[in-house]
Amino acid sequence: MSRKTVIGVMGGGEARPRDREQAYRLGGLIARQGWVLLNGGRNAGIMAATAKGAADQGGLTIGILPDEDDRRISTHIAIGIFTGMGSARNVINVLSSQVVVACPGGAGTLSEVALALKYGRPVVLMNYRPGPEFGSYRQKGQLRDAATPEETIEIIKTWVYPPDHDDPPE
Amino acid sequence: MSRKTVIGVMGGGEARPRDREQAYRLGGLIARQGWVLLNGGRNAGIMAATAKGAADQGGLTIGILPDEDDRRISTHIAIGIFTGMGSARNVINVLSSQVVVACPGGAGTLSEVALALKYGRPVVLMNYRPGPEFGSYRQKGQLRDAATPEETIEIIKTWVYPPDHDDPPE
Amino acid sequence: MSRKTVIGVMGGGEARPRDREQAYRLGGLIARQGWVLLNGGRNAGIMAATAKGAADQGGLTIGILPDEDDRRISTHIAIGIFTGMGSARNVINVLSSQVVVACPGGAGTLSEVALALKYGRPVVLMNYRPGPEFGSYRQKGQLRDAATPEETIEIIKTWVYPPDHDDPPE
Amino acid sequence: MSRKTVIGVMGGGEARPRDREQAYRLGGLIARQGWVLLNGGRNAGIMAATAKGAADQGGLTIGILPDEDDRRISTHIAIGIFTGMGSARNVINVLSSQVVVACPGGAGTLSEVALALKYGRPVVLMNYRPGPEFGSYRQKGQLRDAATPEETIEIIKTWVYPPDHDDPPE
Repeated sequence: MSRKTVIGVMGGGEARPRDREQAYRLGGLIARQGWVLLNGGRNAGIMAATAKGAADQGGLTIGILPDEDDRRISTHIAIGIFTGMGSARNVINVLSSQVVVACPGGAGTLSEVALALKYGRPVVLMNYRPGPEFGSYRQKGQLRDAATPEETIEIIKTWVYPPDHDDPPE
Repeated sequence: MSRKTVIGVMGGGEARPRDREQAYRLGGLIARQGWVLLNGGRNAGIMAATAKGAADQGGLTIGILPDEDDRRISTHIAIGIFTGMGSARNVINVLSSQVVVACPGGAGTLSEVALALKYGRPVVLMNYRPGPEFGSYRQKGQLRDAATPEETIEIIKTWVYPPDHDDPPE
Repeated sequence: MSRKTVIGVMGGGEARPRDREQAYRLGGLIARQGWVLLNGGRNAGIMAATAKGAADQGGLTIGILPDEDDRRISTHIAIGIFTGMGSARNVINVLSSQVVVACPGGAGTLSEVALALKYGRPVVLMNYRPGPEFGSYRQKGQLRDAATPEETIEIIKTWVYPPDHDDPPE
Repeated sequence: MSRKTVIGVMGGGEARPRDREQAYRLGGLIARQGWVLLNGGRNAGIMAATAKGAADQGGLTIGILPDEDDRRISTHIAIGIFTGMGSARNVINVLSSQVVVACPGGAGTLSEVALALKYGRPVVLMNYRPGPEFGSYRQKGQLRDAATPEETIEIIKTWVYPPDHDDPPE
């Protein structure tokens, strides 16, 4: 059995320089763990930054595009999954990710956090504060906050390598 | 041209009695305006309440189901649209509604509010407070709050019958 | 319980005059049975013809559009369901129809026949000969052929009102 | 720019031993070309055979599942894309493949051939005869037939490395 660990990173197509820089670093750290980076695939904002960060570290990048064709895909995406389904592809993003990380974004990113929680995926909010309505998910530990890419990785590890799991690969 | 006005009402599959009662009244008022009620179609919570409210007033009800079959459909839905797509059908709910009303709900309802705003649909929150992150949509008037079904209907009318529109049908 | 009987009619966006004329008559006959007509909703070919046929007889018409918006909808569609999903909406067409009728069309229509058979829907081919590969479905009676709209209606009735069913409404 | 070439192989969840054996060899040959194998991901029939064939040659395998979870995934799929959309995922299969190969299958496979042709994808039928209705696609060269995995690969190369393309990588 050779299934790879897939970590999804969501975030805005428009992003501030500091958020893009953190996203770039997060992408690189995900790649260095040997995990596959999954995102929305577009050549913009958080998506482009995480893809470049992972690709620069030799990681595998998968983009789930809202489009039928590759006109808007990031050049740092190795494998494009083209859905032609607009934001309905947000469901695929969260179902296909073992852990979902949300960086700052708009309504699309918020919909992905909501869908991830609904489908039972663990979620890390990296410097993203979408409001108080997710409190119950925080209480049961499905939703956690992080301030840096390094802290995000440590949280992901608690889910990918739970305590009763064999040693993580070095 | 005979297109009907379709009003979508979203809300939790689990709902408090008071929220269900308000949803029932809202369904009835939508039907009495001659509008089609669209919801998620399931026989639960806000969905069942709005469908019964509209059907009891002789209105037409359409349910967009997450399922492939009709095992969970409300008996008050006249036309079932079966998607077999789970929560990806939330996108269809908002795209097919001229105005979206959100009643109290969980992560699924929140995803529908986020998707509606992303796709440019006007949204009324009826006694639903999903958090501060939608402030920019409030400022530009795409998102408004209502406390009662009657107030909700008045807000919907401002979008369905804009000021430069001919008189609404009596 | 007030669920309406929904009959889906599929067929090409490009269609010959004779096929459009038969589709128009079929739409009218479906409406006169009190059934809801469901189709792909576009203002072209078989879709436009069946919608006009049903609307001219006072029937209710529902279009499941591949688009996010209503720019390509037929003016004879009363209720537009907008999916923004391209041909993935073909699955919704067949799941939402109690019986599927296929008129002559291209690869899109053929995909709908295949999906309808896969999902267990009974299918009538009205002057449409998509090839021999569906033979096993013909043998078990899930796939039947018709030469006229009138014959198509008679076949649909055998599925909508099976022998052990109460008398059909007059 | 590091986009990988993705070749989709479709075929039945139930398959004869000889078809599975050919599918296994095809998966291996795709992997040895350095291409990514994409299929429907389930642990059955043509899907399982092609995934094992590619994985045994060290290739990367991607499965686009109809399901929300991984209960039915082949153990030879490295990356699972979970759609929760049933056969609507067939559209994603063809949109995400640079070339589509169809092995013998049922109505689902036929729907994928039809959707691939509709979306403009080149298609190879490997020992699959879905009927005469695709003649126009054969005439314009979008649809071709092959009798063996080796012949299939040669046809794919004419599309992946067109004559005016630089030399293929060795």
